[in-house]
Amino acid sequence: MLQPLNIIKVGGAVVEDDASLTDLLHTFALLPGSKVLVHGGGRAATQVAAKMGIESRMVEGRRITNADMLRVVTMVYGGLVNKNIVARLQALGVNALGLTGADLGYMLSEKRPIGNIDYGFVGDVKKTDAAFLTQLIKSGVVPVLAPLTHDGKGSLLNTNADTIASEAAKALSKSFDVTLTYCFEKGGVLLDTDDEGSIIARLSRDQFRRLVADGIIAEGMIPKITNAFNALDNGVKRVVITHAKSFEGGTEIVG
Amino acid sequence: MLQPLNIIKVGGAVVEDDASLTDLLHTFALLPGSKVLVHGGGRAATQVAAKMGIESRMVEGRRITNADMLRVVTMVYGGLVNKNIVARLQALGVNALGLTGADLGYMLSEKRPIGNIDYGFVGDVKKTDAAFLTQLIKSGVVPVLAPLTHDGKGSLLNTNADTIASEAAKALSKSFDVTLTYCFEKGGVLLDTDDEGSIIARLSRDQFRRLVADGIIAEGMIPKITNAFNALDNGVKRVVITHAKSFEGGTEIVG
Repeated sequence: MLQPLNIIKVGGAVVEDDASLTDLLHTFALLPGSKVLVHGGGRAATQVAAKMGIESRMVEGRRITNADMLRVVTMVYGGLVNKNIVARLQALGVNALGLTGADLGYMLSEKRPIGNIDYGFVGDVKKTDAAFLTQLIKSGVVPVLAPLTHDGKGSLLNTNADTIASEAAKALSKSFDVTLTYCFEKGGVLLDTDDEGSIIARLSRDQFRRLVADGIIAEGMIPKITNAFNALDNGVKRVVITHAKSFEGGTEIVG
Repeated sequence: MLQPLNIIKVGGAVVEDDASLTDLLHTFALLPGSKVLVHGGGRAATQVAAKMGIESRMVEGRRITNADMLRVVTMVYGGLVNKNIVARLQALGVNALGLTGADLGYMLSEKRPIGNIDYGFVGDVKKTDAAFLTQLIKSGVVPVLAPLTHDGKGSLLNTNADTIASEAAKALSKSFDVTLTYCFEKGGVLLDTDDEGSIIARLSRDQFRRLVADGIIAEGMIPKITNAFNALDNGVKRVVITHAKSFEGGTEIVG
């Protein structure tokens, strides 16, 4: 039997609010056993860009990353957010190590081809090499993954944090029994977005298709759940979508 | 006999100029055997701060780091400079791993006490734990060290890159035969700063004292050479001050 590993992904909204980040880091520090934290960037990049006179452009909730914006997300995701989380986890007794995909060359991507939209310096993941990550995790290290990858030709690329989480989970499932938990500001996947009590406890592929067709599951939740099924299809044992406060309860995605 | 290890420290002026950084990274990539790169931050932090409307204050060549400036150096040193170097080294076949002192908790510091000057969030190194670094280097990983440490209580601290280099060199000298090379824009320690041909090939402690008394060695070179002697007193085998172009020639500091 493989050793269990918890991969916790937290979104930008949790990371950018100091009180919710503090809660999250305390809960994460108490989680027993091997673990990995994946963080989004959130509005900090938009704020820093605005202060530097760089305009943020979003298309369908995704950031357009020109050369100036790539510098900003490298600073904010790879520096400000990642290193502060690492320093705070160290203070809580967690031996954290902050990584972009370039570090240890663990996640290689390619620049998204220009289709109807030119997303700029955005990377689609091509290959994950989990050998060093596996060795470090087995030595007690806790990787903290920033939403940046590299193209192997010297450039960093902005990459969706949900994708980083599911790709890392898939690669690490060769050596660990992986539970992937997507944390956000709600209690799980809701039947009614206005009713926090309407959490779907277990979501199957059929139900997912039906709920998308009915317009109940929409927008950002669709790629998140699609990522989740993809992870389950590729060796990940368990995927849960839940609140950042406890990592418990929520919606289990069932393959 | 211990395995040799080259620790190369490059200053801000080399890092901030794209052509000189490219030269440096190519030379560094070709260096055989185990190696570590330590980088300064340079004027990129001043430029980013200025764009964000944050004023840079320097006293005797040292940056005053208030809370806003700590955010800037965390972004610039830990994110922009460090991660771009890592991505570019990966493209050159070097398995780089970017680290601040908080990562793997490898370098702990304490906030400098307020004396005549309040330097703000500046850290004086207290303890270096090289266990993970040693293991990684022996596995072929090349650490790239940013000039940031942590206080163990959740805060990052701005730390002089020359000090990071000498402290890392001292700690790693327990497991390696360390050569520490300080690279900058000149060919070595010069008898006449206007004459690039006046490089002092070997500099002893006595000569150093004499040249400081005579005003020939001055300013930023004094703490750099003091760091060098301190490293030699604490297990480092060889310390060289030379040009960033070749890592060869230059001034050897002799204990």
